Amino acid sequence: MSFNSFGRVFRFSTWGESHGPAIGAVVDGCPPGLALSEADIQPWLDKRRPGSSRFTTQRREPDQARILSGVFEGRTTGTPISLMIDNVDQRPKDYAEVATGYRPGHADYAYDAKYSLRDWRGGGRSSARETASRVAAGGIARLVVPEVSIQGYVVEIGGDPIDRGSFDTDQIASNPFFCPDAAAATRWEALVDGTRADGSSLGAIVECIVSGVPAGWGAPLYAKLDAELASAMMSINAVKGVEIGSGFASARLRGEDNADEMRAGGKFLANHSGGIAGGISTGQDIVVRVAFKPTSSILKPLQTVDRDGSETKISTKGRHDPCVGIRGVPVVEAMMALVLADQKLLHRAQCG
Amino acid sequence: MSFNSFGRVFRFSTWGESHGPAIGAVVDGCPPGLALSEADIQPWLDKRRPGSSRFTTQRREPDQARILSGVFEGRTTGTPISLMIDNVDQRPKDYAEVATGYRPGHADYAYDAKYSLRDWRGGGRSSARETASRVAAGGIARLVVPEVSIQGYVVEIGGDPIDRGSFDTDQIASNPFFCPDAAAATRWEALVDGTRADGSSLGAIVECIVSGVPAGWGAPLYAKLDAELASAMMSINAVKGVEIGSGFASARLRGEDNADEMRAGGKFLANHSGGIAGGISTGQDIVVRVAFKPTSSILKPLQTVDRDGSETKISTKGRHDPCVGIRGVPVVEAMMALVLADQKLLHRAQCG
Amino acid sequence: MSFNSFGRVFRFSTWGESHGPAIGAVVDGCPPGLALSEADIQPWLDKRRPGSSRFTTQRREPDQARILSGVFEGRTTGTPISLMIDNVDQRPKDYAEVATGYRPGHADYAYDAKYSLRDWRGGGRSSARETASRVAAGGIARLVVPEVSIQGYVVEIGGDPIDRGSFDTDQIASNPFFCPDAAAATRWEALVDGTRADGSSLGAIVECIVSGVPAGWGAPLYAKLDAELASAMMSINAVKGVEIGSGFASARLRGEDNADEMRAGGKFLANHSGGIAGGISTGQDIVVRVAFKPTSSILKPLQTVDRDGSETKISTKGRHDPCVGIRGVPVVEAMMALVLADQKLLHRAQCG
Amino acid sequence: MSFNSFGRVFRFSTWGESHGPAIGAVVDGCPPGLALSEADIQPWLDKRRPGSSRFTTQRREPDQARILSGVFEGRTTGTPISLMIDNVDQRPKDYAEVATGYRPGHADYAYDAKYSLRDWRGGGRSSARETASRVAAGGIARLVVPEVSIQGYVVEIGGDPIDRGSFDTDQIASNPFFCPDAAAATRWEALVDGTRADGSSLGAIVECIVSGVPAGWGAPLYAKLDAELASAMMSINAVKGVEIGSGFASARLRGEDNADEMRAGGKFLANHSGGIAGGISTGQDIVVRVAFKPTSSILKPLQTVDRDGSETKISTKGRHDPCVGIRGVPVVEAMMALVLADQKLLHRAQCG
Repeated sequence: MSFNSFGRVFRFSTWGESHGPAIGAVVDGCPPGLALSEADIQPWLDKRRPGSSRFTTQRREPDQARILSGVFEGRTTGTPISLMIDNVDQRPKDYAEVATGYRPGHADYAYDAKYSLRDWRGGGRSSARETASRVAAGGIARLVVPEVSIQGYVVEIGGDPIDRGSFDTDQIASNPFFCPDAAAATRWEALVDGTRADGSSLGAIVECIVSGVPAGWGAPLYAKLDAELASAMMSINAVKGVEIGSGFASARLRGEDNADEMRAGGKFLANHSGGIAGGISTGQDIVVRVAFKPTSSILKPLQTVDRDGSETKISTKGRHDPCVGIRGVPVVEAMMALVLADQKLLHRAQCG
Repeated sequence: MSFNSFGRVFRFSTWGESHGPAIGAVVDGCPPGLALSEADIQPWLDKRRPGSSRFTTQRREPDQARILSGVFEGRTTGTPISLMIDNVDQRPKDYAEVATGYRPGHADYAYDAKYSLRDWRGGGRSSARETASRVAAGGIARLVVPEVSIQGYVVEIGGDPIDRGSFDTDQIASNPFFCPDAAAATRWEALVDGTRADGSSLGAIVECIVSGVPAGWGAPLYAKLDAELASAMMSINAVKGVEIGSGFASARLRGEDNADEMRAGGKFLANHSGGIAGGISTGQDIVVRVAFKPTSSILKPLQTVDRDGSETKISTKGRHDPCVGIRGVPVVEAMMALVLADQKLLHRAQCG
Repeated sequence: MSFNSFGRVFRFSTWGESHGPAIGAVVDGCPPGLALSEADIQPWLDKRRPGSSRFTTQRREPDQARILSGVFEGRTTGTPISLMIDNVDQRPKDYAEVATGYRPGHADYAYDAKYSLRDWRGGGRSSARETASRVAAGGIARLVVPEVSIQGYVVEIGGDPIDRGSFDTDQIASNPFFCPDAAAATRWEALVDGTRADGSSLGAIVECIVSGVPAGWGAPLYAKLDAELASAMMSINAVKGVEIGSGFASARLRGEDNADEMRAGGKFLANHSGGIAGGISTGQDIVVRVAFKPTSSILKPLQTVDRDGSETKISTKGRHDPCVGIRGVPVVEAMMALVLADQKLLHRAQCG
Repeated sequence: MSFNSFGRVFRFSTWGESHGPAIGAVVDGCPPGLALSEADIQPWLDKRRPGSSRFTTQRREPDQARILSGVFEGRTTGTPISLMIDNVDQRPKDYAEVATGYRPGHADYAYDAKYSLRDWRGGGRSSARETASRVAAGGIARLVVPEVSIQGYVVEIGGDPIDRGSFDTDQIASNPFFCPDAAAATRWEALVDGTRADGSSLGAIVECIVSGVPAGWGAPLYAKLDAELASAMMSINAVKGVEIGSGFASARLRGEDNADEMRAGGKFLANHSGGIAGGISTGQDIVVRVAFKPTSSILKPLQTVDRDGSETKISTKGRHDPCVGIRGVPVVEAMMALVLADQKLLHRAQCG
């Protein structure tokens, strides 16, 4: 409802800048009585943590979330849960150039246009560092929907897709790309290494599949489950596209080919719909794909202007992900959990 | 915020079923003093009206919106504007089969799963007829953002794309497909005719481009302009994908190729971002693409189950669009206007 | 959330002006499967209907609500319920003076200050006629909380209070004042008759008591049950004060006298709290008192200014309630039902 | 919108328990470019700080707010402002009895009924300690409405009112009761001392008057300025009643006596309306009165039950305000500022 809050009854608000003292989230509307400690949140933050491989930014952040409220004797009390993550490895000086010049493709220019001032240290509020707050909040959301299993992974980097025939869920945690195809992961090593050496960056496509969502979550018409997911995913830094099920490919199918025919027992013969029809879950797997553009902050010099409107060249020297989509996986998973937790509670509110 | 409302300060709520007595919208938060009569709304409804060519449903609806409140002596008063459109050409009997059987790909099954009952007459609330209410509300939204120019059109039907080199804005209003490429429009006639004759349906991709949006609309992080647009577009019936600017194609570009380099005077050398960076408009054209799946209601018999779970075949005999994406154009435009009106007022609220 | 909507998950929006073609409400978030027809709504509208005695306005309105959506085969479907009430007995000409002059105490001046224009026909949107929409919506809310029993009544008119010792619930429906004390009702006849003959008006205090609310509805801190009730009641036309339980009188009690001591079995020895502690229901009766000011529209000439700022005298000749608080009773009851329905669903959302 | 958030475009959310590590607020939607440091917030917290006189709780809290985000180089950036106040003087052991027994009149029982568990340390979330977060957030709100002047004060303690004829604004800051009447302040010293010695507590009535609000803030119908204020004030701990202008006394006036007649130049001959008509400000002073019940936590033993439902006696030994209404003054002022800041921005959104 507000600018930095998301959700309707299970809600979270995030705050904090990339190089301020800390970032955080306040989770409100959480059901009471859930067992919760920092240990429930940390594994998800660890998946997203920078510096865990040479394929992500080299900023070193322990990303340890502290719970400051809303938990008593190890259980949620139903009151707001305040999460705080200290920023440890700030280097605002790296961003001196960004203070005046606008990185093409980055939010620098738009922020200045809107607010007439801007916290330029590492992008301030527009930094992907904010997504740590989402991942922490998502760790709580997962506890609200224990019946679902959420699996995100990268299906394409720099235009090089996985081979669906080689899909192996066990591979996802075994390589630094959250890649379900071992061969693709090997190719991507070289691809990402080379791109970083060039001072450039790569885009990626992340897919997220969820099992265990019962039929009936979501609601017409402006809180459709897919509309909520689209908003949630598009709000992630660097995301430029979202599709559900067969998505854009559906537009190329005939009605009978896109139909998910049904059999007795709630069985479906296909899942082009991505588990959502009329904005409501069907009981099939939820399938979402999210397009991440290549990081805007690159070493290669680009033509731009400065705050005074003078033309200049800019080369971003701060520590950045060569492919921000990789670390997008835990963020996509978190937003999925946050949407589903909210929808579960909303469904319970209306339909008991 | 609620299930059938959209927007934050410029808000609208819609109500009504496909074969009930009427449908409508209530628009709240509209600035006072705007000249408004039914004549401002009707042209947009006429663009969406069924039965205007053989390529859309043959249901005959005059779709005349009446203004029941919020206007006095020809001007908006700042109070809620109630819009009502009578349903004239109802034929609920056409839907007898749908009453018990679930159309694969349609919302029938999901609605029953959620609510345990369902208005099956033409899909009830899940019918695309609801989009008339959005188009009417969008007609008011357009008055709030007179500085922008919104142009929607179809860029692909059934996998057959337009030739971008033949793009001619004047063509859009000259054929029944809102197609900017005369040659493609000719091909689509045969394609859609043939598909309808087969008792099947086609998907489509709609693009919408907006000029005149100043830099600065939108806001971090969960009310990003692109997140709002993604939610708005995904809430439209049959939509399965949304992308901004280069969208999914951005994921295949290198950082320097995807960057929109800048020159003095707020000029950009490219527009991969689709006019939005960090969730805030940059002053470039806003560009959105929306994927419509093929209509689920087709004559071809499909395997399905009925309410009792028994397997059966279903063939939808009601009047339906062979390609619902075509009439999606005015709906996409309306949702664009509604998002922009809200964002303009929100920006004014925070930044003066 | 928006200007003309109320509620969080069970929400309603109202629209319409006193002398426009109709007024109405859209109720969203209603649970599915509830038996609902116009007959469930009409009795409440009849309680509020003008012209039912000589102590209310003589405007003749049948106030028949039609249900335009959200109900199928006699049951709510979970989709928006659109209610419409035609305005039948409009006499906008009665308000010629109001078009230019501002009635002291009325919203005329404030509306012009805010919107720079104003529908002056009977007060337009600021008319108490809008409350018919609330009462209709409240009729639906009552179906959501069948476990509660809501009883409103007038406890004071023009400074003349009832005798609590003579409180007789059966009296409430037996006189035109919703008065539980037969002797007071007799006194009020003369009081109201005399005041109307003087061209003046009277204030009143309405009390509303609710049994059957279980402990646990409401929530800290800004959606406290009492905060929601305060907002709901203060939004009613002519209301200037709201108190819960002992209210202002609590401020004059010592801690031990104001405490509601407890006994086994959830029994309380007193109910100073009015059934709400910490913003959450305690299982005791909910008790709210609401102060209505005397109607601003009176025949007695008052000093005022016109739109141009010139000083003038104004005498309101339209048909008006000599004591608007009387017809406030069904409105207070409706707002109570609307708040409780919302809170019940919210509680279910969070706590299952 | 959510349980622990308040506001529509200028919004704040609070978190934290009385005896947890810290409490805080996140303020969202603040206009950019405002000069802001901790020094702008601290004076208001100091007014509310416990232990500043013998008439308030003896808990010693420095109540120093830290700004963790949303400010850059001394100016607000338009992004969320995170405020944190460490809890320093926790003594959870004082509350051992409260862990099992329910204090009559306190939220203990209702929280357990709702959530099935409860942070009993000093009332946890239901503690008036939460109001420090509001006061901090209010300090920011004040910067958004520099045109207004907000003055709160106590007009009655334990049934002993001030003499309006002796009203002296300068007195308010000169005594520990925020009392504008020197003689009353002297009487209250003895009254409060005696009550505390008795192990009891007192109620109070706080009035707040605001000058400088232009005509036009607020909006029909469910976001009326007075409805927002009623909700804001009723959400404060221990508040049981709210009235605007003449409030309940209006119910005892005749129409002509309650009318605020007007003269040229936007002048009014009276202010029974408390500066609000039809939910919109009139340009007169805003006047609100708020009733605080006596503190529920008293030393005198009271009959109650414990978690198991067994009857027992409870005597609250923690440190508590003998008259919580006194420290209510800065809280009422803060809520006033928070409502006005939101309404100012909302008015700007709709009306420019």
